[in-house]
Amino acid sequence: MIRVGVNGYGTIGKRVADAVVSMPDMELVGVAKASANHTADAAADRGYNIYVPEDRHSQWADAGMTVAGDVHDLIELSDIVADTTPAGMGAEYRPIYEDHDTPALFQGGENADIVEASFTARANYSEATDKDYVRVVSCNTTGLNRMFAPLHEKYGVERASITLVRCRGEHAVLSADPVSIPSHHGPDALEVIPDMGPITTMGMKAPTVRHHFHGINVTLGAEPSAAEVRDLLASQSRIHVIDGDLGIDSGWELQEYALDRGRDRMNLYENQIFEDSITMDSSQLHLFQSIHRESDVVPENIDAIRAVAGEADAIESIEQTNDVMGIGDI
Amino acid sequence: MIRVGVNGYGTIGKRVADAVVSMPDMELVGVAKASANHTADAAADRGYNIYVPEDRHSQWADAGMTVAGDVHDLIELSDIVADTTPAGMGAEYRPIYEDHDTPALFQGGENADIVEASFTARANYSEATDKDYVRVVSCNTTGLNRMFAPLHEKYGVERASITLVRCRGEHAVLSADPVSIPSHHGPDALEVIPDMGPITTMGMKAPTVRHHFHGINVTLGAEPSAAEVRDLLASQSRIHVIDGDLGIDSGWELQEYALDRGRDRMNLYENQIFEDSITMDSSQLHLFQSIHRESDVVPENIDAIRAVAGEADAIESIEQTNDVMGIGDI
Repeated sequence: MIRVGVNGYGTIGKRVADAVVSMPDMELVGVAKASANHTADAAADRGYNIYVPEDRHSQWADAGMTVAGDVHDLIELSDIVADTTPAGMGAEYRPIYEDHDTPALFQGGENADIVEASFTARANYSEATDKDYVRVVSCNTTGLNRMFAPLHEKYGVERASITLVRCRGEHAVLSADPVSIPSHHGPDALEVIPDMGPITTMGMKAPTVRHHFHGINVTLGAEPSAAEVRDLLASQSRIHVIDGDLGIDSGWELQEYALDRGRDRMNLYENQIFEDSITMDSSQLHLFQSIHRESDVVPENIDAIRAVAGEADAIESIEQTNDVMGIGDI
Repeated sequence: MIRVGVNGYGTIGKRVADAVVSMPDMELVGVAKASANHTADAAADRGYNIYVPEDRHSQWADAGMTVAGDVHDLIELSDIVADTTPAGMGAEYRPIYEDHDTPALFQGGENADIVEASFTARANYSEATDKDYVRVVSCNTTGLNRMFAPLHEKYGVERASITLVRCRGEHAVLSADPVSIPSHHGPDALEVIPDMGPITTMGMKAPTVRHHFHGINVTLGAEPSAAEVRDLLASQSRIHVIDGDLGIDSGWELQEYALDRGRDRMNLYENQIFEDSITMDSSQLHLFQSIHRESDVVPENIDAIRAVAGEADAIESIEQTNDVMGIGDI
């Protein structure tokens, strides 16, 4: 039984906590959270032990909410901590994890240089085995790596050029974010799959919610047909190739689809690749994919926990995670 | 004096009418419009003669608004009509223009097969000379062609892959639009500049206003530095390379910038290319550009009028248009 603590209980943390609870080989020690707000109330309702920074304890008492201990207690009691704190705060926690001799996972908002390995289960699970500090790359990079890994193994990825439009703008306008090229995603993808050709990512943002969209061009080292590429991608467990007949072309239909299929918290853990967009011209692959920003890294966190704990190999872990979370049921 | 009628008085038509009025070698016969609404009121306030389909005359009389005649009268009185009617309606009007023996310009919403030439002034002005039916390609394609033309002349465009995020979505989500690849822009660009390499465009839409954004990758036939490419693009009269020091990265700042610079109707006629995004890696060019959807085709319409009328060559027309409209003052 791997005893897991989740430090931070936001968009990713709440989903990782739920996933840990659902895994038969894991136990949730508890979650760490600062504010005694509606999210804390919902966590308590799920029966989660909540660990709170000591200087906030009186605020929680005033709110009539129960505190299981200090964040240090959670770290000490855990075999491994999934750090889902806001970007940059993981780096501040890292020496504290070292003090407690507790391995930790970080998220894509942290820099690559604070960890021993960057992680996407399909691409480099074994790199994280028995490491102490591992980073699950960002939701967009995770989505790219899941697509790159099979393409690179089968055909070779000689070059890629990708526009990522992210769902987090302000005002009713588009932005280049950042204006400079590349965004962090290309270099981060190469941290995980280092032997691919140049990967150039262009980041944009739009005032939308839940789903990022990627306009993707990959130069392959072969000239397969679009149907062959489609079949390869559709055979991957964390990629869902959306049948063109379903009539899905926007984040709006993806939300409805997730709800209609009864997915918890509207989660779409898999890359959503639009079948009708998969196009080959000699060695040039073009396609659109959508990434559910809230959930695609959650199964990666679960697999990274097993890798760091040295409890399973890649195939065993990925199969168990998928099976328990219902990944592949759509 | 070229006598110009403008059929349709929407986003593009109102701007083309204003531009025609401002040109010393042109006279605005009038505009054609169906609804007696606030836009008609504003047109009357500018002193424009308004021609109305005959079956609407009583509605205009009820609204107390003056009608100069039927749309057929406008077509008959004009040396050339700029058709700015909604997409697809130009094809319905084309036989009527023929009946009146009046040459006509169409917009990018019409198919290439209803015209003798597709047009972008910088790329193929002379193709339209003395033709009777010419199409000014869409705002996004115009923006692409203005960038392609100098790159292709100087280095050769061997291949391009472009994600166009358009400002016209619904709900607060992103969409692939269309899901299939390519969107019409790549084939349309090749109508104007046929000897470029494959041009693949991926269309998306976001719930935003006024400015489209393009994430662009071009494979050049040479390996210039980013600074050389920047200088080439900045030397083009309808491209504005936005100095990185200006701190502009979104459509919001582009709106403010146009207003601060006193541009009529917030018009940004030039491609807006973000200087800090221009990146070269061997022969691979990446950059972001923004296109003001309301106005970038307006100077192209003016030039197309002169080309069809056979009244000026490319350099004369472009210089006069730019000078009168203040293009290049930013």
